[in-house]
Formats: sequence, C-alpha cells, structure tokens
Amino acid sequence: MSAAPKILVVGSVALDSVRTPYGEAENALGGSASYFSFSASHFSHVGLVAVVGRDFPAGHRALFESRGVDLSGLETADGETFRWRGEYAAELGHAHTLETRLNVFSAFQPKLAEAHRDADFVFLANIDPELQLHVLQQVRRPKLVISDTMDYWIVRKPDRVLDVLREVHVAMLNEEEARALAGETQIVRAADRLLEQGARAVIIKKGEHGAYYQSHEERFIAPAYPVEALTDPTGAGDSFAGGFLGWLACSGRMDGDALRQALVCGAAMASLAIEGFSPVRLIETSQDEIERRVARLHRMVHFDLQPLFQDLG
Amino acid sequence: MSAAPKILVVGSVALDSVRTPYGEAENALGGSASYFSFSASHFSHVGLVAVVGRDFPAGHRALFESRGVDLSGLETADGETFRWRGEYAAELGHAHTLETRLNVFSAFQPKLAEAHRDADFVFLANIDPELQLHVLQQVRRPKLVISDTMDYWIVRKPDRVLDVLREVHVAMLNEEEARALAGETQIVRAADRLLEQGARAVIIKKGEHGAYYQSHEERFIAPAYPVEALTDPTGAGDSFAGGFLGWLACSGRMDGDALRQALVCGAAMASLAIEGFSPVRLIETSQDEIERRVARLHRMVHFDLQPLFQDLG
Repeated sequence: MSAAPKILVVGSVALDSVRTPYGEAENALGGSASYFSFSASHFSHVGLVAVVGRDFPAGHRALFESRGVDLSGLETADGETFRWRGEYAAELGHAHTLETRLNVFSAFQPKLAEAHRDADFVFLANIDPELQLHVLQQVRRPKLVISDTMDYWIVRKPDRVLDVLREVHVAMLNEEEARALAGETQIVRAADRLLEQGARAVIIKKGEHGAYYQSHEERFIAPAYPVEALTDPTGAGDSFAGGFLGWLACSGRMDGDALRQALVCGAAMASLAIEGFSPVRLIETSQDEIERRVARLHRMVHFDLQPLFQDLG
Repeated sequence: MSAAPKILVVGSVALDSVRTPYGEAENALGGSASYFSFSASHFSHVGLVAVVGRDFPAGHRALFESRGVDLSGLETADGETFRWRGEYAAELGHAHTLETRLNVFSAFQPKLAEAHRDADFVFLANIDPELQLHVLQQVRRPKLVISDTMDYWIVRKPDRVLDVLREVHVAMLNEEEARALAGETQIVRAADRLLEQGARAVIIKKGEHGAYYQSHEERFIAPAYPVEALTDPTGAGDSFAGGFLGWLACSGRMDGDALRQALVCGAAMASLAIEGFSPVRLIETSQDEIERRVARLHRMVHFDLQPLFQDLG
C-alpha cells in the first residue's frame, strides 16, 4: 500500500502470555501498537512502525492485513520477538509482570518511511521517551500527536517524559502515572500541574472508571463502557487511544464535540479489547457493534439540562 | 412546622473530629442525617429523625433551622451526642476511624410522628438494618425509599441488609460494600447479583469516580464533579443522596431522565460537601452555584450522538 496512512502508530508488537481469573493465553499477539492498530483500523487507515523477530508468525501478520493495516513499517530483525508474561488478580486492576524479554525490541530505532512522515495523526505508544522524541523529529506536520508512557520511564527519565508531553497535542497517562509525574495525589490537581508544566492537553485513563480529558479550555469526562464479560485488561489503554485518534481521523474534526465523541469511541474500543485475550474482539468486531456501544454510552450519560429551581423562587 | 415534610431522613447527627491533609475540625457538626438534610434542603422540605445528647450545641440546631429543616423528629436524650474521630491520608479515599463513641445513638429507636409517616421520599441513612426495617414499617406509602449501609452491617447482619435492599426502591452502596454484599469483585457483575437478590435498583457510589445506577431496565453513569479544593470527604455519600432524592422530590418526576438528572444533582451536592469541613459548604451554597455545577457536569459528559460510519460504507 503506497498511500500515506492517515494514522501512524509507533510502539511494540509482542507475543504475550497472560493469565487472568478468566483464562489464559500463550504467545498470543500483543503489544501496544497491535492493540492500537486493530482499534483504529475500524475508523481510518493505519500504518504501524514496530519491530518483530524472525519467529513472528505469518498468521499474526495476516491478521493485521485483514484489517488493512499498513505493515511496511514493521521491521523484521534477527532474533526473537518481544515477549511479555504477566498475570492479573481478581480485581484485574494491574498486571503483575512475571517476565519481560525485550529481544529485538531492545535495539528498536524507529525510522519512518517517506510516506509515513506525512501522517496526520500519530500515536507514540509506550516506548522510551528518547525514541518518542526521535519520531517527533521525523514527522512533518501532523495535525494531532498523542503520547503514552509508563511508570518505568517516569521513574528513569522524568525529564524526557516531560519533554515529550510538551511536544505532543495530548499526553495520555493512567492515574498513577499522572500522580507520579505531577507529584500530586489528587487527579484534578495532577492534571492542572501537567498543564502548568507545558502539556497542551492530557487524557488521564482511569480503567473501569473511564477517562478524563483536560486542556486549558475544556474538561471532558468519558465513562468506561460497563463490561460483563471482562476477560483480560491487557491493551485497554492502547485500544482506547485507537478509538480516540481513529474517530478524529475519521470525522476530520477536532473541536470540543469531536473530542468528546472521540473519548467515547475510545471507551467503546477499550471495552471490546478487554472482552477477550489478545486483540481478538477488536479484530472481529463490526461498525454496527461499535455504533451500538457508543449509543449505549450516550444513553447512560446523557441528561436533559433544565433550570432546576425555576418554580421554587 | 406542622406540614408533613416531603423528604424524611432517619440517621445520625454527630459531632465529628476530623483531620485531613488540608486541615482539621474538632467537634464539628456531622452525621449522615446532617449532611443529607443540608443537601436536600436546597431542593425540598426535609424532616430529620435522629437523636442527640444534652450537649448538642444550640448553634448547630440553628443551622438546621436556617435551612428550614424540620427538627421535630430530633430527639434529645440524656447523655452525650454521638462522637466520631477520624483521619484521612493523602489519597482521601477512606477514613481511618480513630474513635467512635455512640453515646445516646446506641439506644436510638426511631419513632416517626404522624406527619412524618406520610413523607413521600425517605432516606434510610447508614444505621442498623433492623432499625431501617423498623422505619419502613412506620412509613405509609412513600413514593421512593433509598437505603444506605456500611461494611460494619454487611459483615454482622448481611441477611438484614439484604432484607432492607429488597424493601426499598434504591439501595445505595459504595464499591467495596457492593463487592462484599454481592460476593463479586467486578462492579457490573456485583450490581447484577444484587438485582438478582431482589434489589429493584442500586446506586454504587465510586467517590471521585462518580456513581453508577442500575435497575432491571436501565443503567446510568454520573461522573463526579472535579473538585480542586478537596478538603474533607466526610459526608460525600449522604450529600449525594440528598441531591438525588432532593431533585426527585423537587421535580415530581421519577422517569429515567429525572433519575439521571437526580444523579447529577447528587454529584453536584457531594462536590460541595467535600470542599469544606462539616457541611459548611452545603449550608452556604446557593441555587445558582448548584445550577452552575450541574450545567458544568452536563458540558463535561454531553456529546452529540451521530452515525459514526455513515460515509465509510
């Protein structure tokens, strides 16, 4: 595919082994760029920049192709694919990592092809902030760049994480990461603090409690879609980002209304991701199912605003 | 005041000593019925049924009267008023109780006056479920009864807590209580389970993450109002209940739209409660300020529902 993808993601493609109270998966397709790509692919054309090893199964590659994901930026290096092994306890809040083998990912140096440098929308998934900055130098004039990060980088390279946060349009973090980076326990204040430190906008992911967007102008709250069939929370945040950026690319709008809709698309995609191991539900879902979840979220949060006290005097 | 109050609350009036990272208060007016009354008083006429000791300050009584709360059901017994001493850590999630002296509250037996038995809306605040059932036998034909509870009763009298849950229109619990009572770690499943066990509807309070309403017909999600000046989370749940029941009493409606609006009024009142020690902010707030918070919550969650994929084919 030679046309420039509208959306570019730079992150990891991995083989995950995960155990949750609801089952387990061995060497299943995983990685931030995978979840993001499958999620965003329902909305727009996605190009993926990542690295895998010689052991990466052709079947996995075919899954990306089935969703129209541009794999021209998926490098194959000598060695093994990044492997992660983890488990979740009953609350499913946080993964307990049992083993991380970076393998070929440890030497990953994202080099964007010409066509990729013109992407309008860019997701800098959770990789070394130095690499995120390196990618930012290569993209030409993106309309919107979102970054993700993780506690590992906040502890080791807080200044670089803040450099990234200042360079992107929206910095995405989870609650603990926002607290750690801002040095504030209260989330609203943590968001204020990150804006003071130069962020243009932040999205704070709160898992089953939804997501919170704050810029200098606006605050939005998107609930999580209530999932009954929760199976494996891996990839929820990346799938959220895929729905968010996907809808902005698809709608061609970036006003407040579009941002709110994008948050809800993100919530819908995250809810699908966690209903199965690996991104299976993101691959098999349909536009109809996504529409239904967004409509259901609308019903759950919408209320008519009317004067409360008009008759009371 | 001889007219029957529209809303009746049965619960505690206490003297609280609270320390948070933002300050402290000694022997300040507290108790579930206090927070609820001040909150609901902005919407409708409230009658309070509780007990205090001979030491209860006349100034506190005057505060209730300043908000038009009917204190004819506030018994004064020989002995001291219920006292609670607690502190909150930086996260402000849960109070650490340092001391509880039930005093006159330990022999509390709510007896409703004739006029009170005709209340349309009843809040059974967190008291012994046996007493809650005793109150339910005394009210004649309430339109809506909401119950609250706490882990203390769930551990000691789970069957009685479930009896109450089956008798009321809406059972209100926080996340941990819902998990404990339902025996389910996932909140959505816990709500399902409580409905299976006979609840008509549940509201699960999630603190800074808002509240979740589920009945057999509907699910609503109300976010919390983002508070910058968080001072003392004591009474947030009772203040939420006051806004919720207050709006239903005020609007005279109980359809889905009214329930959603009521959840948001609850969120607005809870946000005011936690901005100060004791119910000071609930007492001094205005209809204008409440309207503004509800309108702001509307802006934060509202999004236009439109077909996502109409142009994609």
